Amino acid sequence: MPTHRLGLIMHGVTGRMGLNQHLVRSIVAIREQGGVALANGDRVMPDPILIGRNAEKIAAIAREHGIARHGTDLAAALANPNDTLFFDAGTTQMRPALLAQAIAAGKHVYCEKPIATTLTEALEVCHLARSAGIKHGAVQDKLFLPGLRKLDFLRRAGFFGRLLAVRIEFGYWVFEGDLQPMQRPSWNYRAEDGGGIILDMLCHWRYVLDNLFGEVQAVSCLGATHIPQRWDEAGQPYAATADDACYATFQLKGHGGEPVIAQVNSSWATRVRREDLVTFHVDGTQGSAVAGLTDCHVQSRVTTPRPVWNPDVRQPMRFHEQWQPVPDTQPNENGFKLQWEAFIRHLADDAPYRWTLVEGAKGVQLVEAALQSWRERRWVDVPALSLQGGR
Amino acid sequence: MPTHRLGLIMHGVTGRMGLNQHLVRSIVAIREQGGVALANGDRVMPDPILIGRNAEKIAAIAREHGIARHGTDLAAALANPNDTLFFDAGTTQMRPALLAQAIAAGKHVYCEKPIATTLTEALEVCHLARSAGIKHGAVQDKLFLPGLRKLDFLRRAGFFGRLLAVRIEFGYWVFEGDLQPMQRPSWNYRAEDGGGIILDMLCHWRYVLDNLFGEVQAVSCLGATHIPQRWDEAGQPYAATADDACYATFQLKGHGGEPVIAQVNSSWATRVRREDLVTFHVDGTQGSAVAGLTDCHVQSRVTTPRPVWNPDVRQPMRFHEQWQPVPDTQPNENGFKLQWEAFIRHLADDAPYRWTLVEGAKGVQLVEAALQSWRERRWVDVPALSLQGGR
Amino acid sequence: MPTHRLGLIMHGVTGRMGLNQHLVRSIVAIREQGGVALANGDRVMPDPILIGRNAEKIAAIAREHGIARHGTDLAAALANPNDTLFFDAGTTQMRPALLAQAIAAGKHVYCEKPIATTLTEALEVCHLARSAGIKHGAVQDKLFLPGLRKLDFLRRAGFFGRLLAVRIEFGYWVFEGDLQPMQRPSWNYRAEDGGGIILDMLCHWRYVLDNLFGEVQAVSCLGATHIPQRWDEAGQPYAATADDACYATFQLKGHGGEPVIAQVNSSWATRVRREDLVTFHVDGTQGSAVAGLTDCHVQSRVTTPRPVWNPDVRQPMRFHEQWQPVPDTQPNENGFKLQWEAFIRHLADDAPYRWTLVEGAKGVQLVEAALQSWRERRWVDVPALSLQGGR
Amino acid sequence: MPTHRLGLIMHGVTGRMGLNQHLVRSIVAIREQGGVALANGDRVMPDPILIGRNAEKIAAIAREHGIARHGTDLAAALANPNDTLFFDAGTTQMRPALLAQAIAAGKHVYCEKPIATTLTEALEVCHLARSAGIKHGAVQDKLFLPGLRKLDFLRRAGFFGRLLAVRIEFGYWVFEGDLQPMQRPSWNYRAEDGGGIILDMLCHWRYVLDNLFGEVQAVSCLGATHIPQRWDEAGQPYAATADDACYATFQLKGHGGEPVIAQVNSSWATRVRREDLVTFHVDGTQGSAVAGLTDCHVQSRVTTPRPVWNPDVRQPMRFHEQWQPVPDTQPNENGFKLQWEAFIRHLADDAPYRWTLVEGAKGVQLVEAALQSWRERRWVDVPALSLQGGR
Repeated sequence: MPTHRLGLIMHGVTGRMGLNQHLVRSIVAIREQGGVALANGDRVMPDPILIGRNAEKIAAIAREHGIARHGTDLAAALANPNDTLFFDAGTTQMRPALLAQAIAAGKHVYCEKPIATTLTEALEVCHLARSAGIKHGAVQDKLFLPGLRKLDFLRRAGFFGRLLAVRIEFGYWVFEGDLQPMQRPSWNYRAEDGGGIILDMLCHWRYVLDNLFGEVQAVSCLGATHIPQRWDEAGQPYAATADDACYATFQLKGHGGEPVIAQVNSSWATRVRREDLVTFHVDGTQGSAVAGLTDCHVQSRVTTPRPVWNPDVRQPMRFHEQWQPVPDTQPNENGFKLQWEAFIRHLADDAPYRWTLVEGAKGVQLVEAALQSWRERRWVDVPALSLQGGR
Repeated sequence: MPTHRLGLIMHGVTGRMGLNQHLVRSIVAIREQGGVALANGDRVMPDPILIGRNAEKIAAIAREHGIARHGTDLAAALANPNDTLFFDAGTTQMRPALLAQAIAAGKHVYCEKPIATTLTEALEVCHLARSAGIKHGAVQDKLFLPGLRKLDFLRRAGFFGRLLAVRIEFGYWVFEGDLQPMQRPSWNYRAEDGGGIILDMLCHWRYVLDNLFGEVQAVSCLGATHIPQRWDEAGQPYAATADDACYATFQLKGHGGEPVIAQVNSSWATRVRREDLVTFHVDGTQGSAVAGLTDCHVQSRVTTPRPVWNPDVRQPMRFHEQWQPVPDTQPNENGFKLQWEAFIRHLADDAPYRWTLVEGAKGVQLVEAALQSWRERRWVDVPALSLQGGR
Repeated sequence: MPTHRLGLIMHGVTGRMGLNQHLVRSIVAIREQGGVALANGDRVMPDPILIGRNAEKIAAIAREHGIARHGTDLAAALANPNDTLFFDAGTTQMRPALLAQAIAAGKHVYCEKPIATTLTEALEVCHLARSAGIKHGAVQDKLFLPGLRKLDFLRRAGFFGRLLAVRIEFGYWVFEGDLQPMQRPSWNYRAEDGGGIILDMLCHWRYVLDNLFGEVQAVSCLGATHIPQRWDEAGQPYAATADDACYATFQLKGHGGEPVIAQVNSSWATRVRREDLVTFHVDGTQGSAVAGLTDCHVQSRVTTPRPVWNPDVRQPMRFHEQWQPVPDTQPNENGFKLQWEAFIRHLADDAPYRWTLVEGAKGVQLVEAALQSWRERRWVDVPALSLQGGR
Repeated sequence: MPTHRLGLIMHGVTGRMGLNQHLVRSIVAIREQGGVALANGDRVMPDPILIGRNAEKIAAIAREHGIARHGTDLAAALANPNDTLFFDAGTTQMRPALLAQAIAAGKHVYCEKPIATTLTEALEVCHLARSAGIKHGAVQDKLFLPGLRKLDFLRRAGFFGRLLAVRIEFGYWVFEGDLQPMQRPSWNYRAEDGGGIILDMLCHWRYVLDNLFGEVQAVSCLGATHIPQRWDEAGQPYAATADDACYATFQLKGHGGEPVIAQVNSSWATRVRREDLVTFHVDGTQGSAVAGLTDCHVQSRVTTPRPVWNPDVRQPMRFHEQWQPVPDTQPNENGFKLQWEAFIRHLADDAPYRWTLVEGAKGVQLVEAALQSWRERRWVDVPALSLQGGR
């Protein structure tokens, strides 16, 4: 079978996420497995060039992973007509300008989330992409987590009956940095540097909610900065100005048109007494499910217990034992790689692909609505995104 | 030591709560233990008369529990000057009028919650009680649950450091009534009969939040009727018009003046994958706790783990094993009985007592604010209750 | 980034401790990782010359670990101006003279403990170092044990509240040598050869107590020679003249000025029924901790049980299960290497460094006070060390 | 077989210890089993009269336990020639005077410990008893604990070889009384009311050490008041003026004349990470043992492990698993009852009995020596008690 080369410019792969997930576990892994198989049996082999500011660092990464091409000159890379795809995992602040530059150079584009820091910027990029007629995509990796794939499997199987409500608990304790180092970058906690849990997490919650449970219609959100002082990478104290927790409620329109409520807490200042760092509790008329990143347990209508509320005796039921695991009937592949393969088939085969820049823009839209809700102390509607002239 | 008689009119003890908790586990138990001991060693022995509409039923209850006096004529009972306390555990709709009648007759009053269905009515009863100079109280039984007493112990011990946030999950699946009978009365699901989870539970959450975590300042609440049709005690289908779930967020002013957020879900349409039918998750700078009705587990700042978010491997940490139980160092008595004993000492000894009708009115106030928040889709402030002319 | 060479004379690395911990796990490991990083990003690469009496042995060690330079002539090594640091892990008896020689040659010095066998000698070396203006340090490796770092973390986190008392149990059974070989050198049990557990261990306890719990103010110590006859490396019986156990109590001045008691048993004639070869039990008003070399368990005020003393039934509480492990949130590096890196940064960057020869002299001071206490059967005060003319 | 009556005056059985251990578990139990069997098969049946200040209380106790005789007039009871034994478990302050009164009335005497608050008083009572020629005894209940009987069994079996050292850890956390009630009487923590752990526990340690390990020769003791404020039975704060912890070391003369060291910590301000509320660790040349109240584990010379001290890896040995339990080959009876039976046989059969008032006086002697040691900061010798004119 013939193998086609895909010339690919990768920018921003010196960061943890870009390096680990996009380069090593996706592109390098795809290269090692002999490329991506298309419908007709042909294969596509990505041939990346790594672009970064630090020549030494980018050269070291390229060498370590057997990548022949690297450099620091993005404009030169974009001028090469044999590289047709531009990927960005750099900072959010620079992303819209970089995407615009790549689109102007005629490249297809694929990028990390958030696709911009404001909805206006995000929509501008979407317009450019549509006008240029190029193909585009934004990362929505959490959809590929085994636990969430099981939830999607349950919904498609009709297990839940009519969907009622979803509870999401995300978070863990991020150390202050005084007694032991923080486990996240200090800028995450500075508003002036693009930090904040609302900006970080609501981009994710948008596509998770839209895809798995129903389209987001409205949001009520309360943010908080629980820990106002932290210590940075150099051990210096600093004012933590960004929100480190948010308590949000969403009204969704379910896949069958039914109203669904999603109550979602995200926090970097909570201690974990759950099965995983994030848990999704889904209730429907016919059954309920609770998923983490990997596992998922179910209780159906007919196995629902009848506990007694008795303040005088310790609860005799062991509720956790009344749920049943959804078995792992399929191998779990890395979600970033799965999405790369889908995007590559979209490029080469014109296979359908729904995680476009417009979907990325919706995440930014929800962030803005949530911040407005917090500020104005009220529910804020989330209208359908209209991209003038249609998508 | 001398023993003093307390003549006591009990109304509404044919219902499950009135009979089981107030009559059997409180008054009968107090009589069996020889009354309530006062500070000077004297004892007070309650001598109840049971009043109800159904003469036969009330006589049977009295007989079964060794109560000599019973009847159906409330007016006659109130006319007896030797009975100085009136207690009501009947329906909420009738409660304000009954309390007013008893206060007019010069009785002290003690009653179940909610003390009324509207704040106006509740405040009117408070005014009457204050004008009459009688003593009064309203049940706040959940404060006496062992799990909540442990939370209070932790807060007073300084375990939490600065309090940050509280998450409460209350609820379980109330059966629809078609395949198996409901485990709660059908009127609970009819708005026209005083049903609804907001009215039922927010009275509780008010005193739980105020006492354990901080004074409620504002509420944002979204109600829902997840199950719109149910089957009643006769097996007949009916329209469930009342809210059966609510998703609320509260802003509190902590005991040290600090801002605390409480996120509280209450639902009769959820399946339980937690340690108890209600759980309270409390996070503070120095430690966190999760309590159910009976047990409570803690994790302090110094035993907080450092988990890694890795979508590619199943989470290796067993988070539940990283918490430690708060030991049961003290015997747990029935909470209703404890509150009865405190109220009797308040009557006989003038011992301090904080769970007055005014505190009961605050519960009704929060219910109204929550319903308004739901209707108007916004945060509603909960001002300090001003009882004209002072409390 | 530039890399600077640090010429380093290592003496006494043929012994177990010098070879294993200082050469292999510290200097060789630092060389393999590319040196020590300074604040400005520069790196320091140690370039050792190994000096020992046995030319063949020292050459073999150098060869095995890729060390180019070695020899038997210390004077010649000290005469090389490109080697600026002298390190000694030889015998205690020779140490003061060697340090004096190195200081006279203008070298910085770093050495194993005890820094001398008498306080007079120890202070003399301190004076020489101060007069010469060189930098100096003494090993205090136990501070870097993971278990003790956790104790320090707990104290800095305020976990203990006010510190009350510390119990240290150190020791294990050192075989007599008749039925099976001893697991320690025979000279350790001969007073005339510098043996004795008081001299060996109280140097350690001094810096452990001072740093973790409070400054030593006074000591009461009872020594013993439990096993008066042993068999040496050649299988020959000999009189064990040195103390092989000591039972000491210390009065400390805690970090907050509070009085703290430390009760410390050290023995080579005890069998171990504890979690580790040494355990530290720390009690404070708000919580307690028990640490070994690696692990540490805590019990806070609020999880303290209420056991019942009942001689008629076996104790039903499982006390060990009422403690919670302090998690390993940080990688544990070899303590000797950590201290080497700190000392090298002290040399190259002038970074703060507190484990100087004066701290080493304090260990010798405590040894002398303990021996005096044993001899005179009374408490002996341990005054602040005055180094005439300031430190 | 004939049964002989033993007329017995019991004083001070309204307190917890007197009632529970001496009356209920000893005398009542002996009566229920048909008395005490003598060597010739005859039986002795105790016939007590209970004497106390509170007529009502003492009558209630007598009634509950089927005791016919009771009263408040001690003088009258002592005047009854048919009651030949006087027992006291009242307060320590009153004890010497009561014993003197009973001895003057010609009674044999048996009593709780301490037998007096000063050695002078204690010796005075011993002299009176000797002059009067009556039989006498003092409680030494801990000798009858199953765990200590196993230690005695091991020593008599020669298991330890030459005894080297003993470590005793006694104590647990006595709650301050603010967040939860204290579990011991408040007077225990007031020096002015006879409180203090040295007075309470060193009486016990004297007979435990003397009997099980060797005669006490000298003591070094450091006391402390770790918790200077407590809350009493009425919830009122008070100054805790008595010592609540002591750290003592003893020199003993072993049963074979060998020197033995005992290091003993007693504390009401420590949290328990041991197998029992008190543990005894005994090391000898041939083996070691660790006992609690009930159980005892041993490790012999030939099963002693050879652990490695390696700071770089977590200790791989599980030391607790290297010990073997001493089996319960004999039923364990209540220790107080066993001693009562021995004393009754001493009275009726003239059976040998070693736990006399003189042994009780030794406990008081050790308390005084320990307090002197604390005050004078030095070792204090404990000479043989000379009772002028012999014992």
